[in-house]
Amino acid sequence: MEKQQSLEQCIKSCLECMEACNICYDSCLKEEDLKMMVSCIRLDRECADICALAVKSMQSNSPFVNQICILCAEICEACGNECKNHHHEHCQKCAEACFKCAEECRKFAA
Amino acid sequence: MEKQQSLEQCIKSCLECMEACNICYDSCLKEEDLKMMVSCIRLDRECADICALAVKSMQSNSPFVNQICILCAEICEACGNECKNHHHEHCQKCAEACFKCAEECRKFAA
Amino acid sequence: MEKQQSLEQCIKSCLECMEACNICYDSCLKEEDLKMMVSCIRLDRECADICALAVKSMQSNSPFVNQICILCAEICEACGNECKNHHHEHCQKCAEACFKCAEECRKFAA
Amino acid sequence: MEKQQSLEQCIKSCLECMEACNICYDSCLKEEDLKMMVSCIRLDRECADICALAVKSMQSNSPFVNQICILCAEICEACGNECKNHHHEHCQKCAEACFKCAEECRKFAA
Repeated sequence: MEKQQSLEQCIKSCLECMEACNICYDSCLKEEDLKMMVSCIRLDRECADICALAVKSMQSNSPFVNQICILCAEICEACGNECKNHHHEHCQKCAEACFKCAEECRKFAA
Repeated sequence: MEKQQSLEQCIKSCLECMEACNICYDSCLKEEDLKMMVSCIRLDRECADICALAVKSMQSNSPFVNQICILCAEICEACGNECKNHHHEHCQKCAEACFKCAEECRKFAA
Repeated sequence: MEKQQSLEQCIKSCLECMEACNICYDSCLKEEDLKMMVSCIRLDRECADICALAVKSMQSNSPFVNQICILCAEICEACGNECKNHHHEHCQKCAEACFKCAEECRKFAA
Repeated sequence: MEKQQSLEQCIKSCLECMEACNICYDSCLKEEDLKMMVSCIRLDRECADICALAVKSMQSNSPFVNQICILCAEICEACGNECKNHHHEHCQKCAEACFKCAEECRKFAA
């Protein structure tokens, strides 16, 4: 039962992180100070894509769900650490979603 | 404003359809009458994957969002038509989510 | 037999285009004149991702292979048209791979 | 230089494994003894999808390329171990491609 609750929380957090990263990616590409956003652009894409894979693995009962969630947590953390350095609202929101997702992925995979 | 509402509705329907397809895929692989579920297994995967792509394109403001949503609607409809023939609860739920998603994708892309 | 030849040619062209787009994406993110490369960065990602989906659909005998290849051709053409405007070698190579891939996708789907 | 060689070898092995898994997935869905092929069907999809992600990460210079390749190796090994139990030619070919890919991914990530 706790595992099921943790699964649902983790899916929810991954979907929120995926959305925040996709929006941040699009927003970063429109910023004036583009040079500063390069790592953010790159990490947003990595993070949105691994969150999508983690959701698929959780929803379809993949035998590798734990390993995928551990990798997802690592990428979320890196993306959050980059985004939190930028004052743009989309970056701040994204950082928050990334850290939350990293936490839920680690909890679920434990 | 209406376009924005339609976008949010379409993302929501794609996420619900993706979840229903991923669950149906896993459930079909556990059914006894596996021979009957082959098309369902195949279409669930196609449909979950195109829904994921459609969500990414909508959230990240892809220049191809309309074309991707039109393709998504077509695949959703095919998946719904297959799933509705099976009495399993996961298939019936999936068919409903597929038809809803096809409708929202067409509305959004119009 | 001709369909089989065309399939193999199309898979090959999609894989080459995917590689060129992934390399161009990475290279664009390292360019000095970043502002000019924004559309290129975005289209490289769209194009690499749809090429990957097209390859999956061809290799796994998807019932939607024609529709996916037609969409792939459209995205390849857009990406090629953007890349051909930039003098960087990675952009020129990418444009060439995109146009070739668009042609093969259209031929296969015909 | 050795890293570059190892990268090219690893991309090649991932592409061959992806192809073998996609073909094996399609072929398994057409087999008579479908019940026996359930794990194979599931693992073929997991493996083809992670190989595609590994190729993307290597071609686009992802900061997480090592971690993704290590996960890819683990999934390839599981898929190879399942496929090698089945006498179908597509399963035997797939097993071979999986073990080769696991080896190259581990070598590259080392």
